[in-house]
Amino acid sequence: MNTQAAKADWIAVDWGTSNLRAWAMTASGSELWSGASDKGMGSLKPEHFEGALVDVVAPMLGSGPLDVVACGMVGSRQGWIEAPYATVPCPALPSGFARPETQNPLLRVHVIPGIKQLKAPDVMRGEETQIAGFLSVNPGWDGVICLPGTHTKWAEVSAGEIVSFQTAMTGELFALLSGQSVLKHSVAPTGWDDDVFAEAVDDAISKPERLAARLFSLRAEGLLNDMPGHEARARLSGLLVGAELAAAKPYWLGQQVAVIGASTISQIYGTALSKQGVPATIADGPRMTLAGLTAAYKSLKS
Amino acid sequence: MNTQAAKADWIAVDWGTSNLRAWAMTASGSELWSGASDKGMGSLKPEHFEGALVDVVAPMLGSGPLDVVACGMVGSRQGWIEAPYATVPCPALPSGFARPETQNPLLRVHVIPGIKQLKAPDVMRGEETQIAGFLSVNPGWDGVICLPGTHTKWAEVSAGEIVSFQTAMTGELFALLSGQSVLKHSVAPTGWDDDVFAEAVDDAISKPERLAARLFSLRAEGLLNDMPGHEARARLSGLLVGAELAAAKPYWLGQQVAVIGASTISQIYGTALSKQGVPATIADGPRMTLAGLTAAYKSLKS
Repeated sequence: MNTQAAKADWIAVDWGTSNLRAWAMTASGSELWSGASDKGMGSLKPEHFEGALVDVVAPMLGSGPLDVVACGMVGSRQGWIEAPYATVPCPALPSGFARPETQNPLLRVHVIPGIKQLKAPDVMRGEETQIAGFLSVNPGWDGVICLPGTHTKWAEVSAGEIVSFQTAMTGELFALLSGQSVLKHSVAPTGWDDDVFAEAVDDAISKPERLAARLFSLRAEGLLNDMPGHEARARLSGLLVGAELAAAKPYWLGQQVAVIGASTISQIYGTALSKQGVPATIADGPRMTLAGLTAAYKSLKS
Repeated sequence: MNTQAAKADWIAVDWGTSNLRAWAMTASGSELWSGASDKGMGSLKPEHFEGALVDVVAPMLGSGPLDVVACGMVGSRQGWIEAPYATVPCPALPSGFARPETQNPLLRVHVIPGIKQLKAPDVMRGEETQIAGFLSVNPGWDGVICLPGTHTKWAEVSAGEIVSFQTAMTGELFALLSGQSVLKHSVAPTGWDDDVFAEAVDDAISKPERLAARLFSLRAEGLLNDMPGHEARARLSGLLVGAELAAAKPYWLGQQVAVIGASTISQIYGTALSKQGVPATIADGPRMTLAGLTAAYKSLKS
């Protein structure tokens, strides 16, 4: 036990498919310090979760048991312990945290449930905690929250509850098309062009039926017109974000919108929404995760 | 030289990215026998094409030089020799075959040019030969030809010329989404359901703006409703084929349509078109390739 460890009142954990991140926290929700590893849910068997957690949080432990509040895929059926989905409409932080058994007596682990929607069928795990975080720092906020990423979520929030939500695989589609399809020969791994992006978003929103014909043209323009790779990259992103915005129009049209995510991707969505006449509040993803985990910890103590 | 080889008047070659297939042919276009290898354009440097060809066609060679007529990616910039694109509108078999030098005096190789479209930018290599084959066995045919595959082509044909065309990456998207995205957990590698496919096609054609929201629901339905994997497979295919049909509507609506391809995929497209009130003629892909190569050989001799 070191002097810093003595200050930690609980431990916040964001445990996704690929990574695990933990923060030593004060009771009031201040971050003391953090640790991380690549031991995500996707690479662990149930019996290995406790060891993977201890590897990261050992320096945060003191002499007495600490609450560990975790969100994300750690609570999936393939995770440490299944934290069954709550069903919308429901609070972003539903009750009924799952409690895996631990060998280590210093850990009291609580896993936040994911949320499901029966019609149209959809699921989330982790984003509900970011939404709860946003609502904890913006009490009474009503509107639509967009959480861009590998699988972007659009959630309608009213009176502190998630009413409905919808997922688009935009980030995963971009990674597959730009990295593993024939388009990889035309799309640069980095670089950007704001105007090309905006034009592609407009095109995809106004003519969503043309999407299937637009993708291969990125390759043809590379071959025939030497389109620069960074422009192809911005256009591919614009086409996919535009297709997503077309599908999510019932969510954002005429609504108050907040975007929660990493800074670059949030700015991209914010810009695209702004061009559609929808000003969006941008909130930092990791901050909202920590605020949501803090809200969950406080609910344990109340 | 064996007795069979003595009968071959020329050699037909379909040389794509992944494979090479060659046929010993009579002057009138009858197939004597064939050979194949996995030495596709994608795995060869320019100096290795001749050897890869000889490995397959050696048993077809006699004592005098033979014409070898080849189509496909062998004529791309990364192939044996670049056969520059002809520009639409143009005959499916434009003049100006490329002639790579060979060490072996028994080979006279002719590579068929691909075809390009400047606006909207698009390219094809190989499909033009199948279209030429279809037109050679259906002289005077006007209409729209669909060539489903990794990259499906839609070509408007009039008075023996390709007037315009459009590519959709439907086959490649299906392979990436079903094999490498999160949907692989829900989509079975085999199996099918005609009704589920037809419903998804209708859904995608009538509401193309919803596509981005439909894909992840395949995963959610697997998790929440135990949707069988073969149904998820048919629905994913239906959504992607439907998105393609939505984008290609200006091509097929009210037109005479022919589908050229492998039998399973051609039947799938034929069924989807039929449900849209468009009866389609189905033609066998390899047969049309051979007919097109034969037409090219005859043009050399005329």
